Amino acid sequence: MDVVHLRDHPWLGIFDWMLRGIGQVVFQNNALSGAVILFALFYNSWIYGSIAILGVAASTLAALALKADREMIKAGLFGFNGALVALCLVAFTSADFRTGAVPAPLMTVYIIFGSALSTIVMQAMATVLAPFRVAALTGPFVLVGWMFLFAVLKFENLDAGPLVKPISPEDFPDSIAYTLPTWYMGIGNAIGQIFFQDNWITGYLIILGIAINSRISAAMALIGAGVAALTAVISGGPEGAIRDGLFGYNAALTAMALCGVFLVANVQSVLYAIFGAIISTWLWASVAIFLGPIAMPVLTSAFVLVTWMMLLAQSGFKALSAMPPPDAPPPSDS
Amino acid sequence: MDVVHLRDHPWLGIFDWMLRGIGQVVFQNNALSGAVILFALFYNSWIYGSIAILGVAASTLAALALKADREMIKAGLFGFNGALVALCLVAFTSADFRTGAVPAPLMTVYIIFGSALSTIVMQAMATVLAPFRVAALTGPFVLVGWMFLFAVLKFENLDAGPLVKPISPEDFPDSIAYTLPTWYMGIGNAIGQIFFQDNWITGYLIILGIAINSRISAAMALIGAGVAALTAVISGGPEGAIRDGLFGYNAALTAMALCGVFLVANVQSVLYAIFGAIISTWLWASVAIFLGPIAMPVLTSAFVLVTWMMLLAQSGFKALSAMPPPDAPPPSDS
Amino acid sequence: MDVVHLRDHPWLGIFDWMLRGIGQVVFQNNALSGAVILFALFYNSWIYGSIAILGVAASTLAALALKADREMIKAGLFGFNGALVALCLVAFTSADFRTGAVPAPLMTVYIIFGSALSTIVMQAMATVLAPFRVAALTGPFVLVGWMFLFAVLKFENLDAGPLVKPISPEDFPDSIAYTLPTWYMGIGNAIGQIFFQDNWITGYLIILGIAINSRISAAMALIGAGVAALTAVISGGPEGAIRDGLFGYNAALTAMALCGVFLVANVQSVLYAIFGAIISTWLWASVAIFLGPIAMPVLTSAFVLVTWMMLLAQSGFKALSAMPPPDAPPPSDS
Repeated sequence: MDVVHLRDHPWLGIFDWMLRGIGQVVFQNNALSGAVILFALFYNSWIYGSIAILGVAASTLAALALKADREMIKAGLFGFNGALVALCLVAFTSADFRTGAVPAPLMTVYIIFGSALSTIVMQAMATVLAPFRVAALTGPFVLVGWMFLFAVLKFENLDAGPLVKPISPEDFPDSIAYTLPTWYMGIGNAIGQIFFQDNWITGYLIILGIAINSRISAAMALIGAGVAALTAVISGGPEGAIRDGLFGYNAALTAMALCGVFLVANVQSVLYAIFGAIISTWLWASVAIFLGPIAMPVLTSAFVLVTWMMLLAQSGFKALSAMPPPDAPPPSDS
Repeated sequence: MDVVHLRDHPWLGIFDWMLRGIGQVVFQNNALSGAVILFALFYNSWIYGSIAILGVAASTLAALALKADREMIKAGLFGFNGALVALCLVAFTSADFRTGAVPAPLMTVYIIFGSALSTIVMQAMATVLAPFRVAALTGPFVLVGWMFLFAVLKFENLDAGPLVKPISPEDFPDSIAYTLPTWYMGIGNAIGQIFFQDNWITGYLIILGIAINSRISAAMALIGAGVAALTAVISGGPEGAIRDGLFGYNAALTAMALCGVFLVANVQSVLYAIFGAIISTWLWASVAIFLGPIAMPVLTSAFVLVTWMMLLAQSGFKALSAMPPPDAPPPSDS
Repeated sequence: MDVVHLRDHPWLGIFDWMLRGIGQVVFQNNALSGAVILFALFYNSWIYGSIAILGVAASTLAALALKADREMIKAGLFGFNGALVALCLVAFTSADFRTGAVPAPLMTVYIIFGSALSTIVMQAMATVLAPFRVAALTGPFVLVGWMFLFAVLKFENLDAGPLVKPISPEDFPDSIAYTLPTWYMGIGNAIGQIFFQDNWITGYLIILGIAINSRISAAMALIGAGVAALTAVISGGPEGAIRDGLFGYNAALTAMALCGVFLVANVQSVLYAIFGAIISTWLWASVAIFLGPIAMPVLTSAFVLVTWMMLLAQSGFKALSAMPPPDAPPPSDS
């Protein structure tokens, strides 16, 4: 069955929309990209792969139940935040961050509620940002993720373990030298960390999935993660955090968003994206330190904040051009 | 004298507007509802009753002095945040939270300034939210309440005592079993806590005041508080916090707002409201933990955040219908 | 060469725009005011004077590179946040707050990036606030300042020293009596602190610079700082913090903004400005305590928050009149 036609099938269509939802985490409205990325998650851990499906299903079904905009649902735009909420809640409540753990029944219900809530927050942010022609990005995931992680720590029947993952540069020793693996593992891990995957091979498989739909996006993801590693090295960030991809996952998303996704790819937007990637790297550290006292992870808040600012500003900067909406008439008609 | 005609009396009118201001804390634009609720406060403590009058008077007079919209003033919309600011500042600076203490002269001036400021913040939030047809809710109270509670802790002449009220689930022991009073006292206290009243009978008297104007709102308040207690019990929240109504006051407000007040009451909005009440319950715990290090109470921030999100999203969800504005022509004319 | 004509010179014009940028920190679109203020900074420390030039140059050049609105650039509106970001980063990473220290090369690059980022955030905030006809104020500086200060603490190659400046009322002893210098030094220092200058003579020189362009603004700055000192004394704030101008710099900015800059100067706006100055004073303490656990300075966040609220609310208050935009036709034409 052709993947493109699957999209409009009366009851099989949802599988296409869900795969696009996985792809939309990295801006790719393409079911095949989503399938490759899902495979990359399963390659690291079948638990994470399954949880991503649970999350994208819960948020997509919530959008259908609430009768949200059909075209947005079909483009996977109500799925990607749900997938991230589910992955996040499992990642930070599992004894082993790397493979995750199968959530208990009550925790599973909690995850489904969180993913469904991401659909409501997605629509709320889309409504607020619409006048400015700026996307909600992973803002809904960050907000719901923080809200739900805080609560999980305090309900006896939900608490599934301590946050075992280092989430701040302060958790890493300072004295380790940078080596070649700092770079190639750091860049791969940065891509993987977008999906909470602490596995650099998974990261490069995700790049492959992105490249199926957009070689520019794949290149910008690598450039963003590379710029982040370079920025962190020059600034003297701890080697462990760089190799773990922690400095880079926000920068990779920022670089993709600012060149080729929301802004037309050209020399100016490449420079703008590199600037954004550098800022995202420093900001990851800022937010990590800010959240330190309450032991919350940064998630993709640095990417969301920097990219919102840089996209909101774009309308005032004649050096940059926004991408036309997908269904816009050719410029000559407007 | 007829309460309805009082509203337009040249100089007695303000008493009507102030009673409506008390009623608007729970969305009831009805002077008699306000009067019953005020009686419920006096039943618990004459101090709180008097302070509520002080707060609603200060914010309503500020609105008059600034020449704010007359219809909004008459509907009590500039009064309810002022009442809550005043109650909050007394509640958290009194040695005995339950009865409150008469504030010192300087503290009284401080309370009047805070209540007056709530009028300015109300108008600011109304201006920002107007394009989205979403109300400010108790957002002004939450913002001013936090600002003024922080400052009060640090000025020698204002400091009136420690925050003696448990404000986080962490302050309660975990090992107490749930009993019948957990439920009926918990639900009553949840309604009372909306007004900082730690008295479950006051809570049920407030329900009576709401029911005078709207049986749907009264029912949704009870459903919201009940759903919150159930959610907290299933999640394993501490019994003391549930019985004290702490999990429930945000949920009760969310349930009222989402069914019958801002959205047309029907099956879909009841389900939406119950979903909102569950999220508000968890979010109360989240925010309590987040604010723990700085010892700030949650106030109604969970309600405001969840309800803003769910109302902002509504315009994108065809399954839900917004209430028409009070003075809207019949649908057939539009 | 006439300063006024310098503004349109093809390549010397930028010096005029930069001086206006210095002036715009205190709302003065006047190159001579900017020059006097710059002299006041050099009077205190040649390092701070030079750093202000670096910051205003970086942000103004970033605006030129991004092809931002030419009239805004010429009015110095892309310069003032950049100057503040640069001053802030030097002030809080120098062993001696009072004179500052010459930043290391990497730190200089970091400062340039921060100042350039302030241009992007300025445009983003201007875009969001445009529908409400409210200015970004020093919001971009506060956001970038916090972000960059957090990060600087954690990168080994950037860390230039501890935050040595007391930044919260808690850092001062409570038992010192108020004397005459509390007042005249406190007011002068409050004006100086707007530019991170711990020098009360510099403060009065800045007032002189303001008065060259607007005697109303100069008067309101003094009134705001005076009201803040009075409010702090009545509230029992620590003498050291009052004398150091810490309670007053937000209040001085708020008072200027609300009377003569964004609102027409009249009796109502003077009262509104005094109310705003009182609130800003308390809020400075609130924010200082809120930020205490993470050791961040308040910067001008109290001013930004209070003034945004009070300007957003203005459109709903008929007692107050907004200033017409500079290029508006006379009211009779509209």
